[in-house]
Amino acid sequence: MNIAVLGVATTKFGELWDTSPRTLVREAVNGALADAQVALEDIDAIYVGNMLSGILGNQENLGAFYAEELGINAASAKVEGACASGGLAVHQGVLGILSGLYRRVLVIGVEKMTDHKPEHVASALMGAGSDGERIAGLTFPGLYALMAHACMQKYGITESDMAAVAVKNHYHASLNTYAHFHKPITKQAVLASSPVADPLKLLDCSPISDGAAAVVLGAESKAGRKSTVHIIGSSVSTDTLDLADRTVTTSLTATVRAAQGAYKQAGREPRDIDVAEAHDCFTIAELMALVDLGFSDGLKKAARRVDHGEFTLNSSKKLVVNPSGGLKACGHPVGATGVKQIVEITQQLRGESGKRQVPNAHVGLTHNVGGSGAVAVVHILKNSKS
Amino acid sequence: MNIAVLGVATTKFGELWDTSPRTLVREAVNGALADAQVALEDIDAIYVGNMLSGILGNQENLGAFYAEELGINAASAKVEGACASGGLAVHQGVLGILSGLYRRVLVIGVEKMTDHKPEHVASALMGAGSDGERIAGLTFPGLYALMAHACMQKYGITESDMAAVAVKNHYHASLNTYAHFHKPITKQAVLASSPVADPLKLLDCSPISDGAAAVVLGAESKAGRKSTVHIIGSSVSTDTLDLADRTVTTSLTATVRAAQGAYKQAGREPRDIDVAEAHDCFTIAELMALVDLGFSDGLKKAARRVDHGEFTLNSSKKLVVNPSGGLKACGHPVGATGVKQIVEITQQLRGESGKRQVPNAHVGLTHNVGGSGAVAVVHILKNSKS
Repeated sequence: MNIAVLGVATTKFGELWDTSPRTLVREAVNGALADAQVALEDIDAIYVGNMLSGILGNQENLGAFYAEELGINAASAKVEGACASGGLAVHQGVLGILSGLYRRVLVIGVEKMTDHKPEHVASALMGAGSDGERIAGLTFPGLYALMAHACMQKYGITESDMAAVAVKNHYHASLNTYAHFHKPITKQAVLASSPVADPLKLLDCSPISDGAAAVVLGAESKAGRKSTVHIIGSSVSTDTLDLADRTVTTSLTATVRAAQGAYKQAGREPRDIDVAEAHDCFTIAELMALVDLGFSDGLKKAARRVDHGEFTLNSSKKLVVNPSGGLKACGHPVGATGVKQIVEITQQLRGESGKRQVPNAHVGLTHNVGGSGAVAVVHILKNSKS
Repeated sequence: MNIAVLGVATTKFGELWDTSPRTLVREAVNGALADAQVALEDIDAIYVGNMLSGILGNQENLGAFYAEELGINAASAKVEGACASGGLAVHQGVLGILSGLYRRVLVIGVEKMTDHKPEHVASALMGAGSDGERIAGLTFPGLYALMAHACMQKYGITESDMAAVAVKNHYHASLNTYAHFHKPITKQAVLASSPVADPLKLLDCSPISDGAAAVVLGAESKAGRKSTVHIIGSSVSTDTLDLADRTVTTSLTATVRAAQGAYKQAGREPRDIDVAEAHDCFTIAELMALVDLGFSDGLKKAARRVDHGEFTLNSSKKLVVNPSGGLKACGHPVGATGVKQIVEITQQLRGESGKRQVPNAHVGLTHNVGGSGAVAVVHILKNSKS
């Protein structure tokens, strides 16, 4: 697999009260097209990654909605898989290019969440869960709190271990102008923040954000660009929707399988990865991802490594995880997240990430999860030096 | 393009009060897998075509939802494009096979609409329209009524012309055990039925239905089957979401473009088509489709031909349109429709359609539309004798 990432862009993530989803999409798309030096007329297909436009906005023809907004008549579809909608839209774009039917595909991820009452958004987000979970009154912090408890009991993970993830990712976001949050935080601040769903506290949780991101994919590199980044692995796996139906709750099996698929396609191993954007919707989720993606061989060991400053920018070890700040601190506009991850890794592999540039980043990975692990998407990217 | 349709099945369409969406999907999938002689474990990816699970059911992780129901962990995603969601899901399945990443893809179309208040469903269906149309209080019968008036004024189409389409499709449905309606109707009955949105009357409109359909696609034919049907064209086009933004309202430009794309891929012309399932959400929509798909060279001429018994089973002319009864009389469970069209044409091309079999059917076409023509999907299929 060798799909050229021709152009990328993201809007700022955050509480964007004065901006509509249309404006966000236009900003991201214009940025990605300019970056790709590709005209809108040369786009053969549009995939829109989005979760909540139906429930929150009563809009369920979202491919055509944005095609009209952009003023083109390319093939279009919305792709939905809860919080993995963006990653799944990228995967569909990859399939479209590989199929030979499409030469240039525009992938858009977008979500506008802050225009709605928080309790309405929390209820809408349970659209990613099972009927039983909703009837039980569970929310996503509650589901990940159950997983966190399992990790604490089975592997001795502590609240302090989880807090270290938040500290790392808020530090990274403090270097990122398009992040939702910009202030470094301390472990003490995380541990002292309001309880949300025991053991998870406010600063263990990713925020409700607005934002859009866009990526232009192509069959071949564009002449003239010094270093085109390529997607060399794109894999999706599914698990039970209901957390209670799984035999393991300290690991996301869908992530393990999607990662195996992507590594195999790419002919790479976890130790080859220089930079990764992992799905840290809660701090515990990043610790599990470090193991599930093959970056660490045990949950407690992964936690110790984070606590000792690994996976952090400017650490002495090579792999940096969530240099953007991740979902945790860069923000999590649900459908945009999986597309933004591709934007971040592409910019890192091009050496365009400024203050948060990971040195010698040649191979990168993105990891996007829907629900409590019901669907996972892993992409592997490389630059021309790898 | 040469994608094998390995297996197909549909549930009965109708007001299925005693059946859940899960049960409908299981029935359709079990049927399609048995027909394909493919085991569930051999499926590499699932695409679910659905429009309203979010708005009506607060479920937005539908790929994983049905993967769990079926008990597999294949890659999964929901594909949404309003009433074209099913056709778009088939298109994604085709891309998946063409990409080389997937060897067997299961495409599911499903919608459960009658469990909700009709006015709630009518409002949810406006999720396929533009913001302006919703603010104006338009509904889909209203939008198609505007198109019908334009066709009447510009081309002299009459209410009687439209009624003839309903008569044809209800006759076809009377021969179809899985159709929503089973009684032949007369033109007088159509003209005397309650007004819905002038000039459209109750019997000009497709019903609100429940149902599911499933298709197994593969890279190569299964050994042992005498006549495997293949998809040889799969094309999508998009137009403005808002009817008012179009220069033409007596034709769906997205249909014209999608059809051109599919004919080109297939190396076929309109005159090669023996049997077609066209998107007749309202009677006027089928008249427009007959022209847009290239089956007739003028709207009034198309209407006269329908009125003279053409496009009907056992007519002396070869092309039969909507032998299943179409959306109009077989029913229109939104996300299921585009998949059911593939089921119907596959069975026709295999010669398995019993009382409604089109004689000498070797090349077929399906046509699925989202919104008032904002997105259109056209597939062309052939059997081994063509």
